[in-house]
This record gives sequence, C-alpha cells and structure tokens, in this order.
Amino acid sequence: MSPTAVLLLSCPDQRGVVAATAEFIARHEGNITHAEQHVDPVEGVFFQRVEFELEGFGLHRDEIASGFSPIAERFGMKVDLRFSDQPMRVGLLASRQPHCLYDLLTRWRTGELPCDLKVVIANHPDHADICAHLGVPFRYLPVSSATKLEQEKDMLAVLGEHQVDLVVMARYMQILSAQVIDAYPHQIINIHHSFLPAFIGANPYRQAHDRGVKLIGATAHYATEDLDEGPIIAQETDRVTHRDDVASLTQKGRDLETIVLARAVRAHLEHRVLVYGRKTVVFAG
Amino acid sequence: MSPTAVLLLSCPDQRGVVAATAEFIARHEGNITHAEQHVDPVEGVFFQRVEFELEGFGLHRDEIASGFSPIAERFGMKVDLRFSDQPMRVGLLASRQPHCLYDLLTRWRTGELPCDLKVVIANHPDHADICAHLGVPFRYLPVSSATKLEQEKDMLAVLGEHQVDLVVMARYMQILSAQVIDAYPHQIINIHHSFLPAFIGANPYRQAHDRGVKLIGATAHYATEDLDEGPIIAQETDRVTHRDDVASLTQKGRDLETIVLARAVRAHLEHRVLVYGRKTVVFAG
Amino acid sequence: MSPTAVLLLSCPDQRGVVAATAEFIARHEGNITHAEQHVDPVEGVFFQRVEFELEGFGLHRDEIASGFSPIAERFGMKVDLRFSDQPMRVGLLASRQPHCLYDLLTRWRTGELPCDLKVVIANHPDHADICAHLGVPFRYLPVSSATKLEQEKDMLAVLGEHQVDLVVMARYMQILSAQVIDAYPHQIINIHHSFLPAFIGANPYRQAHDRGVKLIGATAHYATEDLDEGPIIAQETDRVTHRDDVASLTQKGRDLETIVLARAVRAHLEHRVLVYGRKTVVFAG
Amino acid sequence: MSPTAVLLLSCPDQRGVVAATAEFIARHEGNITHAEQHVDPVEGVFFQRVEFELEGFGLHRDEIASGFSPIAERFGMKVDLRFSDQPMRVGLLASRQPHCLYDLLTRWRTGELPCDLKVVIANHPDHADICAHLGVPFRYLPVSSATKLEQEKDMLAVLGEHQVDLVVMARYMQILSAQVIDAYPHQIINIHHSFLPAFIGANPYRQAHDRGVKLIGATAHYATEDLDEGPIIAQETDRVTHRDDVASLTQKGRDLETIVLARAVRAHLEHRVLVYGRKTVVFAG
Repeated sequence: MSPTAVLLLSCPDQRGVVAATAEFIARHEGNITHAEQHVDPVEGVFFQRVEFELEGFGLHRDEIASGFSPIAERFGMKVDLRFSDQPMRVGLLASRQPHCLYDLLTRWRTGELPCDLKVVIANHPDHADICAHLGVPFRYLPVSSATKLEQEKDMLAVLGEHQVDLVVMARYMQILSAQVIDAYPHQIINIHHSFLPAFIGANPYRQAHDRGVKLIGATAHYATEDLDEGPIIAQETDRVTHRDDVASLTQKGRDLETIVLARAVRAHLEHRVLVYGRKTVVFAG
Repeated sequence: MSPTAVLLLSCPDQRGVVAATAEFIARHEGNITHAEQHVDPVEGVFFQRVEFELEGFGLHRDEIASGFSPIAERFGMKVDLRFSDQPMRVGLLASRQPHCLYDLLTRWRTGELPCDLKVVIANHPDHADICAHLGVPFRYLPVSSATKLEQEKDMLAVLGEHQVDLVVMARYMQILSAQVIDAYPHQIINIHHSFLPAFIGANPYRQAHDRGVKLIGATAHYATEDLDEGPIIAQETDRVTHRDDVASLTQKGRDLETIVLARAVRAHLEHRVLVYGRKTVVFAG
Repeated sequence: MSPTAVLLLSCPDQRGVVAATAEFIARHEGNITHAEQHVDPVEGVFFQRVEFELEGFGLHRDEIASGFSPIAERFGMKVDLRFSDQPMRVGLLASRQPHCLYDLLTRWRTGELPCDLKVVIANHPDHADICAHLGVPFRYLPVSSATKLEQEKDMLAVLGEHQVDLVVMARYMQILSAQVIDAYPHQIINIHHSFLPAFIGANPYRQAHDRGVKLIGATAHYATEDLDEGPIIAQETDRVTHRDDVASLTQKGRDLETIVLARAVRAHLEHRVLVYGRKTVVFAG
Repeated sequence: MSPTAVLLLSCPDQRGVVAATAEFIARHEGNITHAEQHVDPVEGVFFQRVEFELEGFGLHRDEIASGFSPIAERFGMKVDLRFSDQPMRVGLLASRQPHCLYDLLTRWRTGELPCDLKVVIANHPDHADICAHLGVPFRYLPVSSATKLEQEKDMLAVLGEHQVDLVVMARYMQILSAQVIDAYPHQIINIHHSFLPAFIGANPYRQAHDRGVKLIGATAHYATEDLDEGPIIAQETDRVTHRDDVASLTQKGRDLETIVLARAVRAHLEHRVLVYGRKTVVFAG
C-alpha cells in the first residue's frame, strides 16, 4: 500500500463541511481510501477521519496543512494531520507484570503495531534482558513514595530525549502525577483491569470477586488527572463463574487486559481516535 | 425424561460430605443424572446440586426429605429439595415496557420455561389483552407515591392467593419496599439495565452514554432491600460505539435485558442457583 | 428526527466520487446526518451510504433522483434512493416455531422495526390468533410436496397484493423454489441455524452435536437459489459444552436465531445493506 | 495449595458409580476439592473428574492406583490418574509465525501454564534466540516434501529423548503424518484458524473472506489422521466486517488463535479433558 495522509477533523456541526473536505481532496486529484464521519447531535459536534493516498496527490505532503487551512478556518476545525509512513514514536512504561509488555513487544516486532518503539521504562529491572534481546532501549527507574516526583522527572527526560508521541502504561503500577499527565495530554494510554466505571481504584479483581459478578472486564483509556476517569478507548468483558477465586479472575483478566490494551494502542497509532470531553470517537479499523 | 429429584445443599466444608450424599442415593438404587459441587475455600462453604431419577428410587418422594435428614444433620446442611414435575408457581410484575414480559410469556408458552405461570401484575393496563389472549390472569394495580404501600399490599394478596414461589420483575419500574422483599427472600428476580455495579440507580443508559463506555450490559439479580446490591445471577454485555445515542443504547440494551433475565429465571426454575451472602453459585445448565 | 433521504451507491472505484456526491448535497443546502464509504480494493468497487435531512434540502424528494442522475451516470453508479418516512412493506413467512415470528411481531409493535408489516403467511394455522390479536393479516397456506409450486403461486399472489418490498423467513421450514427467489432478488431474508458455511443443509444442531463443537451459531442471509449460499448479513455464536444435547443446543440456538434475524432485518430496513456478488457491505447502525 | 490427585474416569453409565468413587475417597479420609460428572445419555457413557488433596489422604500416592483398581474393574472404568505436583512434560512445534509460540512461552514463564516445558522444535531457525534467552532447548529441524518422513523421525527422537507427554502445534505449518500422530494419541494439540468445521484445509482466512462471513474463528483440537477432524477442545469467534480484507482477517485471527490454543493447552494440562469418539468432555476450570 502506498503511503497515505490521514486528516482527523472536528468542528461545530454545520452544512457543507463534508463537501468542503471532499472537494479539497478531489481538486488535488486525491484518492480517498477511507472516510468516515460522525455527528454528535446533542453536543452539535462534527467529527471526520479522511485518509487519502499521497501518491498522485496534487500537493506535496508539506503543503497539505497550509493548503487545507482555509477550509479549517472557515469551519472552525481542529485539524490533526498524519502520514502513514511516519509512524508514531512510542514509549512503554512497565512494572513487574510482563503480559501486556511482552504482548506489545511481540506485536511491534512482528509488524502488527505501526510504530517506532523508542524505549521501555520500568520501575523494576526484570525486563531488561528481553528488551536487550529485542534491541529496545531499556531504562530502569526505580521509584518510592519519597522519590516519585524525582523519578517522574527522569522519566520525562527519557521520554523527551526520544521525542515520544505516545506513552503506553503496560500495567505500570504507579499513578502518574500531573506533571506527566499534563506533558502528554491524550497521549498516555492506560489499561485498567475492570469494566470501568465499575471497580475504580485498587484491587479491582478483589472487588469483582467480593461483589460476585458473572463477568470481568478491562478498559483502556487515556490517563487524566482524575484516576480511572479518562476517555475510554476500548473495553471488553469475559464470563466468569462462582468457581473463580481472586487468583483465577486475575489470570483470566490478563488476557482481557492484553487484548484491550493492544486494540486501543493500535486504534491510536492508526489515527482512528478523536477525544472530546471525556469521551472518544473511535473510527472503525 | 422421567421426573427427577433435585437436592440443593450447602454446609461448612468438611470431609466425607460428597460421599455421604452419593452413598445415600446409591443405597436407594438412585440413578444420578447430574451432580456438581463447589467449595468456597475462603468462606469454607461447600455447595452441591444432585439430581437423580425418581423412577426406581427406593424411597417415595415424600420419604426423601426425612430419609436424608440424618445426613443433613450430621453435616449441618441447608437442604432444598425439589421435584422436576412440580414446577414453581410464578408471578410476573410488569410496567409499560413489553420486551421482557412478552419474551417470558413466549418462552413459557413454548415450554421453554418449566414453570406454572399464575399471574401477571402490572401498574399499567397495557398488557391486559395479550395476557387474556394467552390465558394468563392479569391484575392491573396502578400505583402512585401516595398509594404505594397500599398497592403493594394488594400485590402481596394476589401473589399469596396464587401461592407464588417466584416473582419476576419483568422491567417493573417501581422499587419494591421491604414488606414485599421480606415476603419473598431470594425469590424475587430483577433485571437492571447495566453491568452492575456500574451505573446503579436511575437512567443507567444515560449514565453509560455520559461516561462514553464501549460496552453496555444487563444484570439479573435477586431483589434485596439495598437497591441494585442483591446477589447477581447472570450478566451479559454487548459492544457499542460513539454512534450510539441514549435511544440506541436503550434499544440495544433491550436484547441484553431480555436474554439475561430469561437466563436467570431459567436457572432459578431449574434449581441451579444457591445464594450465600451477597453472591450466588449458579450450577451449569 | 426529521425525515431523511438515504442514498445507497456503488460503482467502480475512481477519484472524485466522494466529492461529487458531497458537493451535490452541499449545493442543495443538505445536512448530512450519516455518511460512510467502503472500497473493496480487490474488486475495485466503491460503496457509499449517505443520509441527509429532507427538511431544508433544495430539491423536493421527487426531484432528487433526477437531480442526482448526472453524477450517477458520470461514475456508472448503481443508485438506491429511500426515504426514512416511507417504511418498507414487509411480509413474514412462518411455520410452526414461534420464536422468530413473535420476536419480530413484538419489535414491530413496539416501534423498533421501522416497517409497514403487511401480512404473515404460514403453512401451519397456529399463529392465526396472535396475528388477529395484533391486527396483522394472516394467511394460512398449507403445503405438501405435491402442492408446493401451487402454494408458492398463492404466496406470490398474497405478497404481490400487499406490494411487499421485503420477505422475511421467520423460521419458515420450506425451501423456496426459483419462482419465489427470482421474484424478490436480495429481498428475502432467511435465518439458518448454524454458523454458515458450517453445517449447511438439514438438522444443523444435530450436525453440530455430532461434531462436538464448542460454539453454536446462527446466520441471517439473503435467500438465493443455492441453498445456504446467499450473501450473509449477520452472524453470531454462543458457547456450548459437552453437557448440551441436541435438544438443549436447539433451545440455546433459538436466542441466537431470534437476535441475528432481527439484527439483519433491521439493517435491511434501515438501508444499510449493499449486496455485491455473494457478499454484503453492512454499514454501521 | 497443597498437591492434589486427579482421577479422570469414564465407563458405561450405571448406578452407584458416583457413590463408589466418593466412598473410596471418603474411606481414606480424602478431601475432595473438585468433582464434576457428565453422562452422555445417547451413548450411555459416564465421565467424571475428581480432584482431592494428597495431604492427609490415607493412601500413599503410589498406592492410589492399585487401591482404586477394584472399583475400576467393577464398573469397567478407564482410569487416568495424575498428580498436580508432577506437571506434564511439553514439547512445542513451531514454524515462522511467532504469536502462539511467544504467548505459550510467556504463559509458561509467568507460571500460568502448569507444565515442564522441555523443548521447542521448529522447521525455521527464527526462534532460536528467544528460546536461548528463556532457557528452553531449541531444535531446528528443517523440512521439505522430500525429507518429511526423515524429519519427523528426528522430531520423534527429540520428543522421546525429552519424554514428552504433550505436543503442542503452535502454528506449526506442516501436516504431521501417521507415524507422529500414532505415537501421541490425543496428546497432540493443534490450532486451526477457523471455526471448524467451516473452512477446513488450507487458507481458511481467504476462504472466510471469499464467503463474506461476519465472524471469524479459531479451533483447538487434538490432531488425528483425518486432518481438521480431531476432537475439538476449544473454539472462539470474533466479529469482522466488510472492511476486513484477508490481511486484516489474518491479523485479527491471531488473537483468537493465541487465546484458544492457550485455553486448550491449559485445560489439557489441568487434566480437564476426556476424549471419547471424536468429541471431548472439557470439565470447567
């Protein structure tokens, strides 16, 4: 497939907005490979994702943003322009649990995740050798309640050094403070091991067990200052029974966490997610 | 299939309990058609469901309870004995929404729900004619906040008159007060239109929409005095997207509510549910 | 919601097609409420569904087709134009099993299925009274192998009399011959009680049981002359275990059949399905 | 948890069989931690899984088989006795695709799969270093149509050398011949990338795409001489749409393959699977 440009657009809903964008691309002989729109009639917001081939397009990729700006201005659009051959630069945060980390590493290595994996940062040294083995820089940044703000500063330095676009908390068991959250608005994806908003906070599998639910879930969301309250990108559930104790809920939940996180990361990397308020529009993959 | 007896047992976990029950049935030449047990190692509770054919069994059905009582006493068992050819007597509570009511009526009429449907009680007159058509007694008991306790007294009278064993709230939109709950402990099944404990209380689909979840759910549980806190019998979820407004969540949710309620009612009617604390053991169907 | 027009378009994939349609609607001051497109890059076919409000649109609804025809001609489009306030006219075919029939009747009655239900035709008399009760014309057309072609002629006469747009086989247990199929190309929806193409032909639940599968399924598809080979509209599966005998597979399967058929019928009624070859494009609901 | 013994039993269905086994365990002061039975009423076969603690049991583990043999003889039982602290010895077969292999390696390393992983055999050299890294012996056994039987002999030698109990085909892309199949009856688990029996044979994702299905699936089964016809252990499906081309079906399918294979392997390792004819009984985990 030849490289494409992706426009992620949002603006107040109004007549003519679809036509204006389509006409812009047609005027430059663009070939649209994917277009999807959504209107939130309550909020009156229009959202669109348009993907078109760069090959044969009448504008050089460096001219597209400025070429499109009159339309953006006319409709009051927020515009996000990405190119499929310039993959995002990603940093992974990990703790001791390996399942999400190994899964993302495997998907990246096999080419399933279209990204440039720059660094793994962990507050435990355990995964150093698998990262070395795969050729991914690994940074061990231990943390305690006393050193937390300092450790986060180091983390921000490492992420900045690698010019990371997306941070993925692959079961990173620390709560990030505002200095990190604010540095990467809607660019940090976290996985919570429950069907949010059920069982927010600590030990969700224990909470689920105590409540006697018949399903467990996992939720991938953007990290915000309000813990477990960020915009949801993906969720999934699976059936459990009275047989499942906390240990087996935890084990079964790992598969959900792994798959839901990977699904959310892929959607983000493919420029299919638009955030508005505390919600997301996730265009079909 | 010939008629069977079902023993639902629970007691403190201890050695020999499985053997004692199996030996009792074997001694009387019983043929076990289904046996399943569960141990909650944390609470130290043993649960068992044993189903055996009445035909050829050495004791008359009226002698089984007393014949088994020495074992029950030895192990401190709570015993619930039911016969498959003596179906439970069921009362349905309904309001205006028809989907759960019609579904249960259809399943009952086609023989899928092994019960004796005695009466439908509703606080709206809408479903009188479908009930007349199917030959199910229908009682219209309108309610207002002023008349609520009085209306419930009438309801209890009707349920009592029909000697009902199980009450199913088929999207009955009133909160039952303690006088009804206490009269039917763990004998009232309610359907809540969310994945509990997420979105307890009113308007769960609106809550779900506001939170931007990617799944909606439904939960069937025994009604208790603590609203939406009763032991969960069955749950299910389905995927939704940003496209779904409150109306479409509500519509999609109806299928979940319908199926989850029917599944829970069937499990109860087949004597597959044991309640302990705020949880259930639901043996496989 | 005000009435809308829906354009279902397909044509050879080519540049400018999205822009041309969007520009047509914008030129007439139309407000697009939904637009989705799909390109099959292998077959080189472009598909689009565009929905826009009739209110405020610059052309009267009777002028839209002719107004759009220059664009349709330019791109070689197949065009299907529908109005949301002119619901399809539907005929249901039934046999003895009630679950799909009752479900569709219930959804229609509660306004969930946007259609004009004209007639129920059955080869058994069983459902006459429920139809009478709901005010839907019921026609009993018994059939034997000897009378089949004659019975189908009667069926076609009834369907024609009611000017039916869509025929739904709600577990109608007869195979329709070419004279019926050809009269309603891609306008007859059937439900098959397996995950097609597994278990084509008769007794799929028995086949599933004999094979020992761990999932059962249901498939809604357009009826074609090649039995069980028509374009698939919707499918779903559910888990089963070794405990399930043919009877219980059949019972569990009914819920799948019911929901999958309703989902497919709704997609068709909402003009979200495009057929090409033996496949469908089903736009999101 | 203290070590347990697991009895997997099957015999002609007859009265007293449950009691005899329960009595045997009770007589030796055993504490049953799990017991589940199943009767196939059509075939007239009884199946049971009983798990009890070794600690405090009146017989030494080496005496259990002989102690139980009178009961086994009386009822004509097939008996399989396993101890939870003597994990199975496993060999993995792999080709180029890493997803199933890496997943099983990760689950093994994190202790989720209770087995003794002895060797990975592959017909491609790609995974040598990850195995070295994890400390699992890796054997590269390239194969061509000319050398197939010879290569399989080498494979059998390696498996024999490691006294392997279970062989898992982790997307091993070669068809095993009878000499391997016969050496490990119901001890080789394969993953097929479709919902069997749909799309047997080669290129199931292409077949699925050509047929236009709305779900894809994966099936884990015991390998038998009849390709894709072996007893099914686990299956799962996931929704797809017209948007999915063969490549994306393949990618989405990988998650299904991975999870279904892991689920089947875990069931086998936990002695929860009984094969009879071309079917399995899989007791709940």
